[in-house]
Amino acid sequence: MQIETLSIIGVGLIGASIGLAARRRKLARRVLGVGRSPESLEQARSMGAIDQIAPTLTQAAAEADILIFCTPVDRIVPLVLEAAAVCRPETLLTDAGSTKAAIVEAIEARLTGKPTFVGSHPLAGSEKRGPEHAAADLFENRLTVVTHTPRTDSEALERTVAFWMGLGSRVRLMTPAAHDRALAYSSHLPHLVAASLAGTLPPELRDLTATGFRDTTRVAAGDPSIWTGIFLQNRTAVLAALARLNERLAEFQAALKKGDEDWIDRLLTEGKRGRDALGS
Amino acid sequence: MQIETLSIIGVGLIGASIGLAARRRKLARRVLGVGRSPESLEQARSMGAIDQIAPTLTQAAAEADILIFCTPVDRIVPLVLEAAAVCRPETLLTDAGSTKAAIVEAIEARLTGKPTFVGSHPLAGSEKRGPEHAAADLFENRLTVVTHTPRTDSEALERTVAFWMGLGSRVRLMTPAAHDRALAYSSHLPHLVAASLAGTLPPELRDLTATGFRDTTRVAAGDPSIWTGIFLQNRTAVLAALARLNERLAEFQAALKKGDEDWIDRLLTEGKRGRDALGS
Repeated sequence: MQIETLSIIGVGLIGASIGLAARRRKLARRVLGVGRSPESLEQARSMGAIDQIAPTLTQAAAEADILIFCTPVDRIVPLVLEAAAVCRPETLLTDAGSTKAAIVEAIEARLTGKPTFVGSHPLAGSEKRGPEHAAADLFENRLTVVTHTPRTDSEALERTVAFWMGLGSRVRLMTPAAHDRALAYSSHLPHLVAASLAGTLPPELRDLTATGFRDTTRVAAGDPSIWTGIFLQNRTAVLAALARLNERLAEFQAALKKGDEDWIDRLLTEGKRGRDALGS
Repeated sequence: MQIETLSIIGVGLIGASIGLAARRRKLARRVLGVGRSPESLEQARSMGAIDQIAPTLTQAAAEADILIFCTPVDRIVPLVLEAAAVCRPETLLTDAGSTKAAIVEAIEARLTGKPTFVGSHPLAGSEKRGPEHAAADLFENRLTVVTHTPRTDSEALERTVAFWMGLGSRVRLMTPAAHDRALAYSSHLPHLVAASLAGTLPPELRDLTATGFRDTTRVAAGDPSIWTGIFLQNRTAVLAALARLNERLAEFQAALKKGDEDWIDRLLTEGKRGRDALGS
């Protein structure tokens, strides 16, 4: 794949990493950046994540072969629709949002025919934000979910897959709903739990935490406004995952109340087996 | 402080790290190791964590000026009592167990007068086990809790504090009960939650986890038999901490069900504030 002009909307950690990777891997001849923060845009340009700052979304859209939206999830739908109204019919629009069903459904309801939108979610990132934490190798050996629906254009799907593979990522195709159910378990529930643990720790005990508490709660340092949007868009699946976790916590509670050594050991052993299967 | 002979009972990650630190910092002239696993003892000796393998606890106790017990928590009380019966009256006995009230109470009920036992818990370690993961700097800039009760001998308390400071650790004095209440929040509850999350993840979703899930569940890889003992010894405090976490999770659940943006944002913001206060 060789892209003439790639436009990145939102040059934070993910957007700037896409720019760095696209330029290093010569996936795009020119990378435009657009966003709300002049400081982030200037930083993205000075670090080589984008070639030029586009003054408006309209201009970034009109000139792009591929447009990728790397904003908080609640901003993606209006921006995609705004860009779709002004870009060329053959332009591909995709995103990097952590939820997929709400975004894809809302866009497919409004955007029929050309240009086409395909949903994406690279499973990479961190609790940090801003282009200063971007990395050209952020997507290497990571997985990106690309979503398909009965209405997804197959050529656009292929281009989206090629785009992420061009950035160094592995790709898996899923429906938006299957993506959201999966991410509820693998990302959104852990975030909710980490935030709850960090919010539950009495302040006077902070000095008594060690690496275990810090690891377990690390993601809670993520931006609340970004995560609020994710939770709102995926609340049904998150509630289902939370219900399953609550069952497990209730089992632990019952085992502790009874002082049942075998039961506690079994719950811990199941957890260890699940964790060991992920590698370090 | 200069120790003539230090005997370490249990040469896993913690015990072997104590040996490495004591020898590097010339805190002890001679370090003896005793344990159940000949392989671990041989490895601890070959890596320089101990000078000699003591054939029996009796011999390690009889020759020691300080004895430190680094076994799983459910083994500490019987081993301390066994050692106390054969060591010199001026020998100091201490431990590195993750719970304190059950251990200190059981020992104080049986051990009156000399030799003296003082409870300790270095807030260091990891989900890994065995001397191969030991490090001479494991205690540097970490906190060790040393416990005191109305029956604690003040000279023995001072020696215990000097011992941990000699290994590079900071020290805080707490009662055994206060230690256990604190660690329920800062260590035992996070472990329970990590094990529950790891045990709840459907196996087919393992490929869809990224660094967030891995960080949040890392401690769940710890040895279940070691952690079962910790949970059994501290179950009252762990149940209290779990009840508080459950309240917070119920708040999240209610906020999600209502789709209440401000409420979700507030819960996440409280979590971020708590996490940010810990540093990276």
